[in-house]
Amino acid sequence: MKLLSFKIDGRESFGAVVGDEVVDLGRRFEGRFVTIVDALRADALGELDRAVAGATGDHALADIEFLPVIPNPPKIICIGVNYETHRNEIGRDPSAKPMVFARFPISQVGHGEPMIAPPESGTYDYEGEIAVIIGKPGRRISQADCWDHIAGYAPYNDGSIREWQRHTPQWGPGKNWYKTGAFGPWMTTRGEIADDQDLHLKTRLNGVEVQNAKSSDMIFKIPELIEYCSTFIPLEAGDVIVTGTPGGVGVRREPKLFMKDGDVVEVEITEVGVLSNPIRAEAV
Amino acid sequence: MKLLSFKIDGRESFGAVVGDEVVDLGRRFEGRFVTIVDALRADALGELDRAVAGATGDHALADIEFLPVIPNPPKIICIGVNYETHRNEIGRDPSAKPMVFARFPISQVGHGEPMIAPPESGTYDYEGEIAVIIGKPGRRISQADCWDHIAGYAPYNDGSIREWQRHTPQWGPGKNWYKTGAFGPWMTTRGEIADDQDLHLKTRLNGVEVQNAKSSDMIFKIPELIEYCSTFIPLEAGDVIVTGTPGGVGVRREPKLFMKDGDVVEVEITEVGVLSNPIRAEAV
Repeated sequence: MKLLSFKIDGRESFGAVVGDEVVDLGRRFEGRFVTIVDALRADALGELDRAVAGATGDHALADIEFLPVIPNPPKIICIGVNYETHRNEIGRDPSAKPMVFARFPISQVGHGEPMIAPPESGTYDYEGEIAVIIGKPGRRISQADCWDHIAGYAPYNDGSIREWQRHTPQWGPGKNWYKTGAFGPWMTTRGEIADDQDLHLKTRLNGVEVQNAKSSDMIFKIPELIEYCSTFIPLEAGDVIVTGTPGGVGVRREPKLFMKDGDVVEVEITEVGVLSNPIRAEAV
Repeated sequence: MKLLSFKIDGRESFGAVVGDEVVDLGRRFEGRFVTIVDALRADALGELDRAVAGATGDHALADIEFLPVIPNPPKIICIGVNYETHRNEIGRDPSAKPMVFARFPISQVGHGEPMIAPPESGTYDYEGEIAVIIGKPGRRISQADCWDHIAGYAPYNDGSIREWQRHTPQWGPGKNWYKTGAFGPWMTTRGEIADDQDLHLKTRLNGVEVQNAKSSDMIFKIPELIEYCSTFIPLEAGDVIVTGTPGGVGVRREPKLFMKDGDVVEVEITEVGVLSNPIRAEAV
């Protein structure tokens, strides 16, 4: 099942993609689930699956406005330097533990929505990543149990303002500019992707491939990330773990390749779908 | 006005402290405001003030369970290394910009609630800080305008598991252990504290003073923090900026002074109140 959050006629809802249409689950489950997180909290993925089976779409995909897959996650836990190719290009020593920082929800946009290049810096860079969406809550989750806690997978663009990322050793500001990240178009639920299946991640800027990796290339694999993060804080339904970007970022190219008004950036997980966003310069 | 969030008889509400009682504003404004953030979003501090004037309390302070002042802030923006005394004790070079990282809401507890020492590390340290609560939303707020955006001030304990803070250069894990931070007992609203008034911050562990500073000692003052943070992301009603800790942390003492089961830690802002929490070892 492909689950997404969307807006139509001024109303926010969530649904499932069937062909080029959307089954409006927010409407069909009105009074019970308003959001994907509600449904995850109720452990209702199986119920949604049954509702979608054989259903016909309520809206054309072309008519909806995509929201971030989870518009307001309890936590967006980002992993840094999690591919050897990226570790090498930025010249960092290996670390024994995953590198963890956070994004705030309002730093992200949905599929198709412009990602905003601010006037304060010309160093806006892409970072194609695989987002893991948590379904079942848990604390101190073992690697063996981790798959049961995953609701699905989605492309994520951890867009970064490099200049502000380096103001100090903490990356917070560069990773949290308003509407610089993107999360979509949908999450493919665990039922359609085998546990530990190798996922293919590609980033394209204006149609040119700039990143290409597999989830098996991660330094800390998904089970290790879930084990580590759930040790220090309980994972909740709707939490998002953004698993890090592979080599090929713009700031390490020669000449540097930053995103600017009019560009189009795509993050593809071949087994899930393609997240595409135009870049728009902010008028201040 | 002293505003707090609390729980009584299994119900969550918010209110104002009058003497040793609480005026239950959640009940008095039922249907309009469920939380402090609701009231801030409605720009209703003046209305609350009028409701509290002359009101008698609904509950004894001794009967309520304190929640974090804002239990679920849209953003908890933490500032690192913001006092010279702390910068010196940790041996960091000055930086031209504020250091920014994030806490997740479920990492914090309310006044009186145990702060949890996890079994995974014996390096649980206190950090007394001044929290600034945002009332009026804004983006790219000038230093001159910043005070209009502040709803109030509250003590904050940015409790840190030092060992996990240093797993990698990003501090996320050490700053986000479940129930290791504390935020309370209440916020004193801007009406009772003059703009740019010097606030006195003290931390005590088991009654012994371990930190003592004034807000005027900050490297980046409150106006600079609001200007900087609101440049990269819009500030929203209920956002919390935790403004950094002064010198005297336990990890830089000889011998090191970490918190353990049975300790009591207090963070006082003399002009606001005292946040007090017992430390409890987690049983796993």
